[in-house]
Amino acid sequence: MVTINKETPLQDIGGGVVRKILSHAPNLMTVELHFDKGSVGAPHFHPHEQIGYIISGKLEYMENGEKRVLETGDTYYVAPNVVHGVVALEETKLLDIFTPEREDFLR
Amino acid sequence: MVTINKETPLQDIGGGVVRKILSHAPNLMTVELHFDKGSVGAPHFHPHEQIGYIISGKLEYMENGEKRVLETGDTYYVAPNVVHGVVALEETKLLDIFTPEREDFLR
Repeated sequence: MVTINKETPLQDIGGGVVRKILSHAPNLMTVELHFDKGSVGAPHFHPHEQIGYIISGKLEYMENGEKRVLETGDTYYVAPNVVHGVVALEETKLLDIFTPEREDFLR
Repeated sequence: MVTINKETPLQDIGGGVVRKILSHAPNLMTVELHFDKGSVGAPHFHPHEQIGYIISGKLEYMENGEKRVLETGDTYYVAPNVVHGVVALEETKLLDIFTPEREDFLR
């Protein structure tokens, strides 16, 4: 089953961050995020496992207080309930992937 | 835990297709694929659930005999054991995502 990006609604979640929920099913979800330069994904945690894929741009990824700069094509894996966050060092496009899906995003 | 794309080995899987295994854990795996124009991901199936994200380019996606053209930013979801395949209509970069991980890719 396909999801066409340009037919998918953009959600402004504030602070220079917008997202599109792309293909998802109960066990797997993809979410495309656009960060303006300097915008922040504040540190948080959740029981879902996650991988982030940097589609384009550059960000500082923080996990458990440790920071790494990630660029186009790099990924990060987040185990359940690990505190993580990002700061966009440039305008950045990110694909966030979750298992199971984030039901809270669908309400 | 991060995976740096340029430090990750490229695997030539033949027929104009190369792949990089990026972040993965038992429940979640990301694989970046590069298809030369005209190259093919032959129809196949597996018990893993999958989402494909078109990073750039254009491909024809086939699922259960039905075809759709997908472009940059589009996604497809594949339920367990559903027959699916792709043909690259242009040089295409694809992110394939699996739950659980494809242990066969790690041998």
